[in-house]
Amino acid sequence: MIDSWQTLENCLTCSGVKDGVMEPINLNEYEALAQACMEAAFWDYYQGGSDDEVTLRACRSDFERIRLRPRMLVDVSTCTTDTTVLGTPISIPIMVAPSAFHGMAHPEGECATAQGAGMAGTLMAASAFSNRTLEEIAQATTGPLWFQLYTYHSLQASEAVVRRAEAAGYRAIVLTADLPRLGKRERDIRNKFELPAHLQTANFANVVIDENYVPLPSNVTWETLDWLQAITSLPILVKGILTAEDAHLAVERGVAGIIVSNHGGRQLDGAVTSIEALPEIVEAVAGRCEVYLDGGIRRGTDVLKALALGARAVLVGRPAIWGLAVNGAEGVRHVLEILRNELELDMALCGCTTLASINRSLVKVL
Amino acid sequence: MIDSWQTLENCLTCSGVKDGVMEPINLNEYEALAQACMEAAFWDYYQGGSDDEVTLRACRSDFERIRLRPRMLVDVSTCTTDTTVLGTPISIPIMVAPSAFHGMAHPEGECATAQGAGMAGTLMAASAFSNRTLEEIAQATTGPLWFQLYTYHSLQASEAVVRRAEAAGYRAIVLTADLPRLGKRERDIRNKFELPAHLQTANFANVVIDENYVPLPSNVTWETLDWLQAITSLPILVKGILTAEDAHLAVERGVAGIIVSNHGGRQLDGAVTSIEALPEIVEAVAGRCEVYLDGGIRRGTDVLKALALGARAVLVGRPAIWGLAVNGAEGVRHVLEILRNELELDMALCGCTTLASINRSLVKVL
Amino acid sequence: MIDSWQTLENCLTCSGVKDGVMEPINLNEYEALAQACMEAAFWDYYQGGSDDEVTLRACRSDFERIRLRPRMLVDVSTCTTDTTVLGTPISIPIMVAPSAFHGMAHPEGECATAQGAGMAGTLMAASAFSNRTLEEIAQATTGPLWFQLYTYHSLQASEAVVRRAEAAGYRAIVLTADLPRLGKRERDIRNKFELPAHLQTANFANVVIDENYVPLPSNVTWETLDWLQAITSLPILVKGILTAEDAHLAVERGVAGIIVSNHGGRQLDGAVTSIEALPEIVEAVAGRCEVYLDGGIRRGTDVLKALALGARAVLVGRPAIWGLAVNGAEGVRHVLEILRNELELDMALCGCTTLASINRSLVKVL
Amino acid sequence: MIDSWQTLENCLTCSGVKDGVMEPINLNEYEALAQACMEAAFWDYYQGGSDDEVTLRACRSDFERIRLRPRMLVDVSTCTTDTTVLGTPISIPIMVAPSAFHGMAHPEGECATAQGAGMAGTLMAASAFSNRTLEEIAQATTGPLWFQLYTYHSLQASEAVVRRAEAAGYRAIVLTADLPRLGKRERDIRNKFELPAHLQTANFANVVIDENYVPLPSNVTWETLDWLQAITSLPILVKGILTAEDAHLAVERGVAGIIVSNHGGRQLDGAVTSIEALPEIVEAVAGRCEVYLDGGIRRGTDVLKALALGARAVLVGRPAIWGLAVNGAEGVRHVLEILRNELELDMALCGCTTLASINRSLVKVL
Repeated sequence: MIDSWQTLENCLTCSGVKDGVMEPINLNEYEALAQACMEAAFWDYYQGGSDDEVTLRACRSDFERIRLRPRMLVDVSTCTTDTTVLGTPISIPIMVAPSAFHGMAHPEGECATAQGAGMAGTLMAASAFSNRTLEEIAQATTGPLWFQLYTYHSLQASEAVVRRAEAAGYRAIVLTADLPRLGKRERDIRNKFELPAHLQTANFANVVIDENYVPLPSNVTWETLDWLQAITSLPILVKGILTAEDAHLAVERGVAGIIVSNHGGRQLDGAVTSIEALPEIVEAVAGRCEVYLDGGIRRGTDVLKALALGARAVLVGRPAIWGLAVNGAEGVRHVLEILRNELELDMALCGCTTLASINRSLVKVL
Repeated sequence: MIDSWQTLENCLTCSGVKDGVMEPINLNEYEALAQACMEAAFWDYYQGGSDDEVTLRACRSDFERIRLRPRMLVDVSTCTTDTTVLGTPISIPIMVAPSAFHGMAHPEGECATAQGAGMAGTLMAASAFSNRTLEEIAQATTGPLWFQLYTYHSLQASEAVVRRAEAAGYRAIVLTADLPRLGKRERDIRNKFELPAHLQTANFANVVIDENYVPLPSNVTWETLDWLQAITSLPILVKGILTAEDAHLAVERGVAGIIVSNHGGRQLDGAVTSIEALPEIVEAVAGRCEVYLDGGIRRGTDVLKALALGARAVLVGRPAIWGLAVNGAEGVRHVLEILRNELELDMALCGCTTLASINRSLVKVL
Repeated sequence: MIDSWQTLENCLTCSGVKDGVMEPINLNEYEALAQACMEAAFWDYYQGGSDDEVTLRACRSDFERIRLRPRMLVDVSTCTTDTTVLGTPISIPIMVAPSAFHGMAHPEGECATAQGAGMAGTLMAASAFSNRTLEEIAQATTGPLWFQLYTYHSLQASEAVVRRAEAAGYRAIVLTADLPRLGKRERDIRNKFELPAHLQTANFANVVIDENYVPLPSNVTWETLDWLQAITSLPILVKGILTAEDAHLAVERGVAGIIVSNHGGRQLDGAVTSIEALPEIVEAVAGRCEVYLDGGIRRGTDVLKALALGARAVLVGRPAIWGLAVNGAEGVRHVLEILRNELELDMALCGCTTLASINRSLVKVL
Repeated sequence: MIDSWQTLENCLTCSGVKDGVMEPINLNEYEALAQACMEAAFWDYYQGGSDDEVTLRACRSDFERIRLRPRMLVDVSTCTTDTTVLGTPISIPIMVAPSAFHGMAHPEGECATAQGAGMAGTLMAASAFSNRTLEEIAQATTGPLWFQLYTYHSLQASEAVVRRAEAAGYRAIVLTADLPRLGKRERDIRNKFELPAHLQTANFANVVIDENYVPLPSNVTWETLDWLQAITSLPILVKGILTAEDAHLAVERGVAGIIVSNHGGRQLDGAVTSIEALPEIVEAVAGRCEVYLDGGIRRGTDVLKALALGARAVLVGRPAIWGLAVNGAEGVRHVLEILRNELELDMALCGCTTLASINRSLVKVL
């Protein structure tokens, strides 16, 4: 039996790497190292998709159907990757996507992830399903935070969490739109996966959990969004939109941003991929709110492709977990740094010195 | 030598599963268990297609060319899967397709299959080529039945069977249109497959089989359909239509329903797949009769795709046999229950609370 | 070392088949048996293509991009496969393509092939590069023959061969258009393939071979066709046409037929396939001459697809060689019989009772 | 440990070939032999691409999406492959692409490569990153040369090199447009690849290398091109253009030629391939300068496809290195000779007797 967590030395040793002699050079290598670090059932939890994992695979393969049209002979002595998201400056157009229960990857859990994101000069969207309280997470990082809200059976319970996020300095609320129920994740079913007792949701550790706190009610609707907008002055983002129709509805309701996502291929198998859905959503939004892409980003060129198709920034989920598992906050920072370096190099190779100069003409969709 | 049938215990044991500790969680796992249960030549008979099995494989791969466009923030607290077929209520838009000789999969044969379908609240279309008489099948189930007619050399013989189906309470007659001759099923040819003596067609066990009862005459035509409509007041469905042209003819002749099918890839290899043919048929029919899809359904999302493209319901053939082989009536029920649960979950994940709300905008064909 | 030829018994024995207990049931099985029968370098000569064999593989895979749209409820009690080619009746729309040096596959060489074609009620196009003289071939068969002419350095030498073909009763001359030089067949190059002394071209065995008889001159042109038309009253076919442009030219010159072919993938690697080129050629010809397809036919459904796209008949090359290698004339007959049976069955399954009823609506090109 | 170079005997012996008994018959065989000859890290340097090597693979696979439409019955007794590039006659439309540090493949380095190109009657574009000085290279060959310029931090340093190239008889300057920074070549990173001391750039061996000589400045722009045109009367080519937009700019600035290239898949991974970009560039240029294709040429048919899509000639990089590694100048000559023979044969099989007769109608893009 391996433990759910091993120190970096152990982890790297078990991968045949030692004394920092070799460092992962890309996200694929982080993935392999992370698998070696993590308990098998936890690994499956993070890596797995729903049903036959068709969408999970398509998340990656769809990027290969897009090719880049680089421009030459531009002065690329300085390429800047900084941008803003909802007015908040970040140093790269790459944020850490919300994902649940980082304690399975590292004992410091979400605190380490947020710290790593902050060290990399970017934002993390913290999940409500965390092993550290939202207040602990906020204290752990120098970077900006968003709070990903899963509503609860009782709106009062949901409101209480929002109030805490406001108080802790979170800059926006991300309403999860694509989880009215949990997808059929067969790896977890076969593993009879259950959260260990010490890794239960931290945010309500001091609350008597009654039926009001049952999460993932199936009756979250556009009216829930209205309610949320009424109770908070924080900007609201909706995560999980995959169609122009829903993007229209979201914009009409006044959201500040849309996160195009299929929940990492963990919900509806066979759904369109984020990168495939992005163009119709960007067209529907027509600049009325910010649009982000979540899902499948593994290389700087993937970021370029998403931005060329209209995303303002992207989010990475699993890669942050890999960095966390391999080396805690430092691993998260390094994963983001690798992406930053790739993106910055790829911009130079494309003749783009600022993110603003990236547009649709940079890509060709096969 | 293995027997043609093994008890569930043996079957599960030989698959490394015991004492009900593990239950199949999807149809793929039922398929693997069923293969372990069944005599090789019987397995080949059920699983095989014709020629090079190109169409057999395409039946599955064509579903991957269709992607779902899920809608969010709909109240999906309650998703209902019930519908009607030709006015008969069923609890899921999934029926058991007619297939021959269930006795090869289980000693109780079609009686167990029908019983399982009834337990799952749905309809079975019983094949004329059954190891139990149509009357036995009708008695075995609480669910509704259709009778799949293979005509015989003599129309009187055919009429006699129809009369018995009427008397036994069958609700419709399914005329098989795509079997003027048997496809070239090379697995059977290589296996020198022959029905064992105790598994001959049951429906004529007490009849002196003369040339009048030779089945599969090659001269079944649209006039045969007219004749059938003249002799019975039961609604008539035609099974095996793959073109808009034939759909037009069927509707003009007044059929109650069309089952789009390529006979499980067992007849013409290289034929279009059912899911590929469905749109042109739905368009041709233009609501004038009900249209069903048969072929390739293995997941709840497959059902969604078929319904989005205009099918009123789908039929599953081999998966019912797998359930039957593994666990008799209970296995059939469980296979259908798995599909029901997947469908209901997938509807929730798509924002569809009723089957009526599923339409063309739910899918994108690559 | 294996001999260049083994008797059927040896051949079947080495394939684990004995005493005729098992007979090949499709052309794929004949292919496997033939390989076991034949000397490796001879096998490579027949099977190989040019360069990277891209076109050789595409010849098969392109057929899978075409799907059949079968029609139902047609009286298919009788499906007839007989047709005529240039007025000559044949019992199936499948002829034996010209190919060189059958002596490598069987000691009776082209005589056996022609005999098998005749036994199957169809026509063989005999190659000028044969191990039996054209007169011997003509005597060996009851079926009709065409003569495939490779012109020689001297037109007189070419004319002499045409005169002999006329005298021997050949019904048409097939002018080879796609062999101004031999393609780069790398299997042969690596094998240092050379015809054994006893397998040299038979047609000039009694002629002093001087420079006049050097075959494959690179200066065969449309004028050569004019010359050929001037010296013989036999109908002329051109073999090797792959474009609408050349089809126009051929028709304007008054050819009786066009054989669409890429020489079995043995000449220009990367060329369009026959089935891909067929539609544009049929459109260009517009009924002004007969059009045949050569290349990639392995199943009855392939014949259907070619006929649906406008071919009057097809030719098979390698499959005839396989039959010949395995069982001489009887093997050739059996290969053709398998194709006949498949075609006849496939017609029934498509609702086509005559070849004339096959048209473009039978296929869908992906 | 193997040495960085082995004599032909050793090399061929280690491949199981001896005494010249067998000679490579195509470029694929040269590739395999070269790998056996070369130190692993050097091999990786030449063979590798950037990131996931998606573009590297696409460089080859994109050629398979183009099919040839050969014309028949043309007198192809004589097919001529000679052409001119920027007015310089060459005997085949195939040049040696610039690539760095040939000393890793052969002790005579670029001198042997240039000699081989000259022996084959064609031109080599010599890289500034060479292990022999540009003057040595010029002396070593009878063929024409272009000089591929990488600019340096100081324009004076760059000008000095251009002056030397002029003096040594180079006929044109190739400005590298696609290397503002080095791509992420992960094979080299993992190998910790470093040039051995004896294989440093030769051109500045006698110069005190200060900051003025730092190559690959990121501020090379269209103005650099203007500067280059001002200081030399040699014709200027731009290498690395992949879009119509940049082709327009280049033509407006008066370049003599454009080399369409993605730097062998070593710069931006995911970029369009050269053969994919060629048509839009040829259309944009509209005959106002010459256009060449670099990348993925391995067969005579590849050359045909590039020329049909509008290239005046092509360049081969890695294949020349393979020839060099296996057999020095003679190997380079042989590689080019193989391509010449293939091209000449393929022209004959397409009915093209001159390069001028090759046009767009020769290809069909799938």
